[in-house]
Amino acid sequence: MTEYYAPLDDIRFVLNEIAGMDEIASLPGYEEASPDLVDAVMEEAGKFCSEVLAPLNHSGDEQGARLENGVVRMPDGFTEAYAQFAQAGWIGISIDPAWGGQGLPKLLSAATQEIWCSANLAFSLSPMMNQAAADLLASFGSGAQKEIFLPKIVSGEWAATMNLTEPHAGSDLGCLRCKAERDGDQFRITGQKIFITYGDHVMTENIIHLVLARISGAPEGVGGISLFVVPKYLVGDDGTLGQRNDLKALSLERKLGIHASPTAVMSYGNGDGAIGYLVGEENRGLHAMFAMMNFSRLGVAIQGPAMGERAYQLARAYAEERTQGVAIDGTSPDAVPIIEHPDVRRMLMSMAAQTEAARAMNLYIAACQDKAARHPDDEMRAANEARQALVLPIAKGWGTEGGIETAHLGIQVHGGTGFIEETGAAQYLRDARISAIYEGTTGIQANDLLFRKVVRDEAWAMNALLADMASARDELAASPDETLTTLAARLGQAMAHLDEATHWLLGTNAQDPARAAAGAVHYLRLGGITLGGWFLARAAGRAREMLGAGEGNQAFLTRKILIARFFADQFMPDCPQLLAKIMNGAGSVMDGTKGVF
Amino acid sequence: MTEYYAPLDDIRFVLNEIAGMDEIASLPGYEEASPDLVDAVMEEAGKFCSEVLAPLNHSGDEQGARLENGVVRMPDGFTEAYAQFAQAGWIGISIDPAWGGQGLPKLLSAATQEIWCSANLAFSLSPMMNQAAADLLASFGSGAQKEIFLPKIVSGEWAATMNLTEPHAGSDLGCLRCKAERDGDQFRITGQKIFITYGDHVMTENIIHLVLARISGAPEGVGGISLFVVPKYLVGDDGTLGQRNDLKALSLERKLGIHASPTAVMSYGNGDGAIGYLVGEENRGLHAMFAMMNFSRLGVAIQGPAMGERAYQLARAYAEERTQGVAIDGTSPDAVPIIEHPDVRRMLMSMAAQTEAARAMNLYIAACQDKAARHPDDEMRAANEARQALVLPIAKGWGTEGGIETAHLGIQVHGGTGFIEETGAAQYLRDARISAIYEGTTGIQANDLLFRKVVRDEAWAMNALLADMASARDELAASPDETLTTLAARLGQAMAHLDEATHWLLGTNAQDPARAAAGAVHYLRLGGITLGGWFLARAAGRAREMLGAGEGNQAFLTRKILIARFFADQFMPDCPQLLAKIMNGAGSVMDGTKGVF
Repeated sequence: MTEYYAPLDDIRFVLNEIAGMDEIASLPGYEEASPDLVDAVMEEAGKFCSEVLAPLNHSGDEQGARLENGVVRMPDGFTEAYAQFAQAGWIGISIDPAWGGQGLPKLLSAATQEIWCSANLAFSLSPMMNQAAADLLASFGSGAQKEIFLPKIVSGEWAATMNLTEPHAGSDLGCLRCKAERDGDQFRITGQKIFITYGDHVMTENIIHLVLARISGAPEGVGGISLFVVPKYLVGDDGTLGQRNDLKALSLERKLGIHASPTAVMSYGNGDGAIGYLVGEENRGLHAMFAMMNFSRLGVAIQGPAMGERAYQLARAYAEERTQGVAIDGTSPDAVPIIEHPDVRRMLMSMAAQTEAARAMNLYIAACQDKAARHPDDEMRAANEARQALVLPIAKGWGTEGGIETAHLGIQVHGGTGFIEETGAAQYLRDARISAIYEGTTGIQANDLLFRKVVRDEAWAMNALLADMASARDELAASPDETLTTLAARLGQAMAHLDEATHWLLGTNAQDPARAAAGAVHYLRLGGITLGGWFLARAAGRAREMLGAGEGNQAFLTRKILIARFFADQFMPDCPQLLAKIMNGAGSVMDGTKGVF
Repeated sequence: MTEYYAPLDDIRFVLNEIAGMDEIASLPGYEEASPDLVDAVMEEAGKFCSEVLAPLNHSGDEQGARLENGVVRMPDGFTEAYAQFAQAGWIGISIDPAWGGQGLPKLLSAATQEIWCSANLAFSLSPMMNQAAADLLASFGSGAQKEIFLPKIVSGEWAATMNLTEPHAGSDLGCLRCKAERDGDQFRITGQKIFITYGDHVMTENIIHLVLARISGAPEGVGGISLFVVPKYLVGDDGTLGQRNDLKALSLERKLGIHASPTAVMSYGNGDGAIGYLVGEENRGLHAMFAMMNFSRLGVAIQGPAMGERAYQLARAYAEERTQGVAIDGTSPDAVPIIEHPDVRRMLMSMAAQTEAARAMNLYIAACQDKAARHPDDEMRAANEARQALVLPIAKGWGTEGGIETAHLGIQVHGGTGFIEETGAAQYLRDARISAIYEGTTGIQANDLLFRKVVRDEAWAMNALLADMASARDELAASPDETLTTLAARLGQAMAHLDEATHWLLGTNAQDPARAAAGAVHYLRLGGITLGGWFLARAAGRAREMLGAGEGNQAFLTRKILIARFFADQFMPDCPQLLAKIMNGAGSVMDGTKGVF
């Protein structure tokens, strides 16, 4: 099996030429993020992936995490890899130095996140949980909670989990039933949580569970949910570990993929109730958890191109090595590497184009988040906040579905060999499949996009984004280069379809939200393709400039233009049909179906 | 887990109203296939699926086939189920009564095939191998070979396998290296074969391997390949079993899906060489094997809607049961079944529409095959042969990719639960995945369609098919019913795109086949959607007639019209973009990519 190498050339190109790393490094507090430091960090991360994480990916899948006599056993090498990862400081890369982090931009953190996910998706979820919990406690925890828990979570000495879902409360958290009874300054938590990522394991001496529960007497629905920190081992005021808390992993799920990530059914309070401490205000738990979920949502969005990249590398290597069939142009009587066959080349180019478009989208979001948090100008902060909030559900929905499709194509390039687990291609499909589900399914992302991000502000943010795209289009259209003007024209068409869909959905929603909702996923895809085309067209424009100036690697830059053209030719034609499906959808999905379908 | 029920209502509707079961029953030799008999056969088959095959599907996946001490152990219940299946005479359903079969139409056999695959795909492959081998030996075997092997294969007392692939010869069989040395009247076979479905097991007392090999001194390439029958246990002239032949299963593959189907690496000739008997003429083995593969190709095409139907049934049951989130129209403050949510309904309708379109396409092919074989009129035979040959690669490629997409959506409808193996939805994706690979990948199907079925006859068959569609379109367009005239208009647009693509590909191919080949898979999909729309529109037209006449089940017929409209609204808009991608493809995939991408 081909081992993974981090695609540092492309990541560096996106960081510098698309996401604006230099602008991010000029924000207050990010001055350290010099080009040299960014390069060094990425090199080091890439090395860690190739040497430590990627080699454990297949064996981790085969062995899986196992619950034995109440203890969750990790696959070989995971505990050691986790310790190395934590010691190297990777968990705290973008966390405030006050808590032991390195305080680097989210943009850089997102770039490293992609390669952790590529190298070993199941592994990457563990530090991702720490980062999410640290983010949440840093924003909502009390002073004492921060002092006691944050440094240990950031250093990785302790692990962390997020406990939201219950059997009857998945996407609809308002239904959750976990209870919290006041007991002096603390609470006693009872109830069951499911789908808890890294819910239990022995990689760390303690695990800090963040748990949503309902305080006795709290209102029903989402307004009666509070957030608690519930350690596996109780912690003294001085940080020393005390007795085991009243909680345990009842079982681990047997899943389609990410086998090495223990997904637990957690039981709280089999005796007196698990001791928990309120985080933030009573009944405002969901507010805090949503902040954390937004963090995790980018993390999951990143899994799309991460899995795509890994699948692409394996399929590409196979296609260059495997000979089968003569060349279609008859240039040789011998079998040629299958990458010479037009359909195989088409599949590989699709995989690369999807991956590179989604990568750029995610890093764009991370840059927006950095600017939203740190830009000295109020308006710029607001504008960037609106951009990231709008693009995030698109990146999550479109990017992860694209990652799955890419992994699917990766198997297809392999033919029969792709169906054999030893090859590795099948694992990428199995692992990638979850990314379109957790942290909100594609349908949930589409509803978020349509109702919260477009309807609520009457497309103000969407129009602003379209204006950004129009600038890029105008710039490309003014180029003497024919490929660039073609890209500009295609981008303009896609934008027109996105704009028309936006207007149609706003109008339809005002009359009947269900008819708008029937087209929400198509709208998300339309957004994904249009944005993807925007990023790749900008990349092509920049590549052309650099080629003209004799800068950079010629082969890399030429390929960048090729990929943008491929995307414009092979992905962007979907835009008109997505608009048609949106407009048809109201009728075909909702009219007269109830009781008949 | 919801158990499977055979969708007899829809199958019966397609058999009678679309595929023309009455016409088939009027063909010479098929007179027995009366409506009552057809109903009885389908009822019985459905019962067998629900009671015997479906309950073994999940446990078969979990246990898998295992090679232990040189013996392939089947999952619990498989050996007994196979015996029952064989005893009931299902293997021989469409085989000549001279060999112990029932001699019923292929159309009926195809309808049963779908439900075997739905109920238990891994199981279904075993009798499918018997049918394929019987077909092959009946056409190409010597008198003695037929006498000795055929009755046992048809009765299921002996199993059969197809041995084509070698490590260096997959899609490109011309490269195969297995050797055959003449030894009196027989041959000694040596070499290794991979991906051998049911290559070894203990369900039957003997296994008859059909093996492609190269006789010493034969020409290189495809013109030097011969076909041999190689029994696991040698067989005396009186049919008694003799000693074990020099062959064995070296290992079983660990696969993404169809775990219960033992996929073996077979080794022939570890001692003196496995004894084999030439089937048909020397160096004409590939010709015979291709005849068999055409049989199997429809069998695999059927797996598309088969897996789709199973995934749909599970997802639909879940969506009706699972409550989560309030209704979007605010009609109720309580959580509603998720099927009420527009995007969930859209996904379920997509699953149903894809499945019903592909089902109709497969049964149409089977009916064409029956007419091609038995119609008293020469021209009708030729016309039907051309139809089935043209539509087969489309049904295989588009239908199986659609089955995979449907299984993917089935997981998505389940949300997080879909990722848990216990649910069963994940197995359908894992199992379905192989269907777009074996018996020729989608890319291979697309090349077959474009170069063998369209270029070779300069689109004569395609034009004839388009003329058939035009009749249906004209009939629907003349209806006073607005839905039907809309369907007619959409079908007409799709046909125009298919026609334009055909012309463009013919013209482009004449200049540069590689540029045509780059769009072959898009062309296959365009064909699939257009044909799917044709079948569903015809179904809607017939349903409207029956409703008008007060015949049939009103709810079923109304739903049929709804599904046709959904397909026209949500699948057929893809046609223009597929045409665009075909025309763009030549440039984006082939121009300037070599050495750069």
